[in-house]
Amino acid sequence: MERLPLIGITMGDPAGIGPEVVVKALAEEEIYKICKPMVIGDAKVIERALVFTNLTHLKVNPIKAISDAKFSYGTIDVLDLENVDLDKVPIGKVSAEAGRASVEYIKLAVKLALNKEIDAITTGPINKEAINKAGYHYNGHTELLRDLTKSKYAIMMLAAKNLRVTHVTTHVSMRQACDMITKDRVLVTIRITHDALIRYFGIKEPKIAVAALNPHAGEGGLFGTEEIEHIEPAVKEAQKMGINAIGPLPGDTIYYKALRGDFDAVVAMYHDQGHIPIKIIGFYDGVNITLGLPIIRTSVDHGTSFNRAGKGTAHPGSMINAIKFAAMMVSRSKEYESSLRG
Amino acid sequence: MERLPLIGITMGDPAGIGPEVVVKALAEEEIYKICKPMVIGDAKVIERALVFTNLTHLKVNPIKAISDAKFSYGTIDVLDLENVDLDKVPIGKVSAEAGRASVEYIKLAVKLALNKEIDAITTGPINKEAINKAGYHYNGHTELLRDLTKSKYAIMMLAAKNLRVTHVTTHVSMRQACDMITKDRVLVTIRITHDALIRYFGIKEPKIAVAALNPHAGEGGLFGTEEIEHIEPAVKEAQKMGINAIGPLPGDTIYYKALRGDFDAVVAMYHDQGHIPIKIIGFYDGVNITLGLPIIRTSVDHGTSFNRAGKGTAHPGSMINAIKFAAMMVSRSKEYESSLRG
Repeated sequence: MERLPLIGITMGDPAGIGPEVVVKALAEEEIYKICKPMVIGDAKVIERALVFTNLTHLKVNPIKAISDAKFSYGTIDVLDLENVDLDKVPIGKVSAEAGRASVEYIKLAVKLALNKEIDAITTGPINKEAINKAGYHYNGHTELLRDLTKSKYAIMMLAAKNLRVTHVTTHVSMRQACDMITKDRVLVTIRITHDALIRYFGIKEPKIAVAALNPHAGEGGLFGTEEIEHIEPAVKEAQKMGINAIGPLPGDTIYYKALRGDFDAVVAMYHDQGHIPIKIIGFYDGVNITLGLPIIRTSVDHGTSFNRAGKGTAHPGSMINAIKFAAMMVSRSKEYESSLRG
Repeated sequence: MERLPLIGITMGDPAGIGPEVVVKALAEEEIYKICKPMVIGDAKVIERALVFTNLTHLKVNPIKAISDAKFSYGTIDVLDLENVDLDKVPIGKVSAEAGRASVEYIKLAVKLALNKEIDAITTGPINKEAINKAGYHYNGHTELLRDLTKSKYAIMMLAAKNLRVTHVTTHVSMRQACDMITKDRVLVTIRITHDALIRYFGIKEPKIAVAALNPHAGEGGLFGTEEIEHIEPAVKEAQKMGINAIGPLPGDTIYYKALRGDFDAVVAMYHDQGHIPIKIIGFYDGVNITLGLPIIRTSVDHGTSFNRAGKGTAHPGSMINAIKFAAMMVSRSKEYESSLRG
């Protein structure tokens, strides 16, 4: 029997809902049937989360080396960085201390993944303000992970139910997004999406739909020219490379078609175009996946929710699915690699 | 007993799926229980549609005056303009002849509605290329209706299930949409939405959510300044007028909240932002409503679909709902007016 994928789960900002959704996810026995989960964080914070979630039947196993992990349901293995002073990190507050701690979990997780000591990382939510206060000037995980792994591209995929959406642009204004829609950028996103569907999702011949930027796909140039100048040429170039891509298709009807099964993924042009459908069909279930990195990384698709942290009411659906996706992606990737070796 | 609302239904482009969805809708007996429907079109085209939809148990009553209508289930009253030569208007083809005919139905419908001879109009789909070939240089119904009724504003609302969305901008490029997001324009859209919810939807104290243009509602100015410069001031101004509006809220999560019942309507900033959620939750059921006109006008939210016209496979859901919405809006509007008279 193949060994289960080892997933490093960073607990996110200690003051947010990250630790809570992590312990709630690891209270699900099914998780231990598909992977070996190991939290990367601070054991005291995890203990605190077990108390306010009434999950004290679970035990914490603070470890200093992966070899000490038990990977056994009922015990939460925590690679313990002991980097949080609980008195200085009150639940629900932005702090540099918490921001610094949350980045340390990610740095270690990336190092372990690059060294192949873990198979994938799943990340809990961090807070932009907190990490900036701690001196890490990033918009969020994606940019940090791109730097830490020295990657040229980091493409955001969101997945919920049978819908997968990748984004050509994300955390920029709509005006800047319009400027960033270039043939090269669209093509790179199509290619990375295509490769990921084959390698990580086990889809042999992916069908990819590319959304338009403008309404009615630009209506032949009447409502904008990005389709004619950039998106259509990128789709044609992708087709020449043997990729089964179609588009640009109007952004409003593309998701109905994807949801009924016409495509394996949609390439969206901007943040909300990809996020609106995912939040409608899977508000609590969506998973954020970073493509283009040399490691497998999944994440919750929500933030630290400081306003509800510590109450025990956070929904763990996204974290559960993020762990499941990571495990699935590791398995598919191994199958893919052995298929190459024939 | 109150008399039923009289709805004038323009059959749309004779070569598209308009006539088909009209006869399919009027094959539903429930329609005759909530309104008196009268088609405005060409009787020969309606006869043809009855044949290829296998609805020949329905009869056509071609009339020249509304007083000749029977308003009885089983008979389709057609105010017959006799303006289509079937030989010159093959099904599924763009033609100036069909474009001209489709505009004539609308002109008559608007005239009848302005004269209060009918209570509302529901429109079948027209084709932009066809009407332009016929010399009518409009992007579609909305602009034509605004001109015909000499209205300053025509705001597009889409409705499906419990979701209602109005649009600050529609058929323009994303770049132009960004330029058009001004405080005045957002405020007018909020006000017209508010008034319509009271008058036509029977909601006494509407709650309106206003979407942001940029991701994360601009993230405090980092991802664009339209929220700070235009949208937030418009929301504040609306609040001062006593309107229960909130926003700008991030465009990706606003619909989840609207769908669970937090708001009575969402004001979207651009075409796809409003259309994506409607097409996901009600692909075949969505209704297009024009607000800001002196008449009640509902419409299907789909086009002429020339490629599937004449096959009998078009889905009448949107037309059925468009007629139902028109009837409901007439009734609510009468209730509202009598409440004013105390």
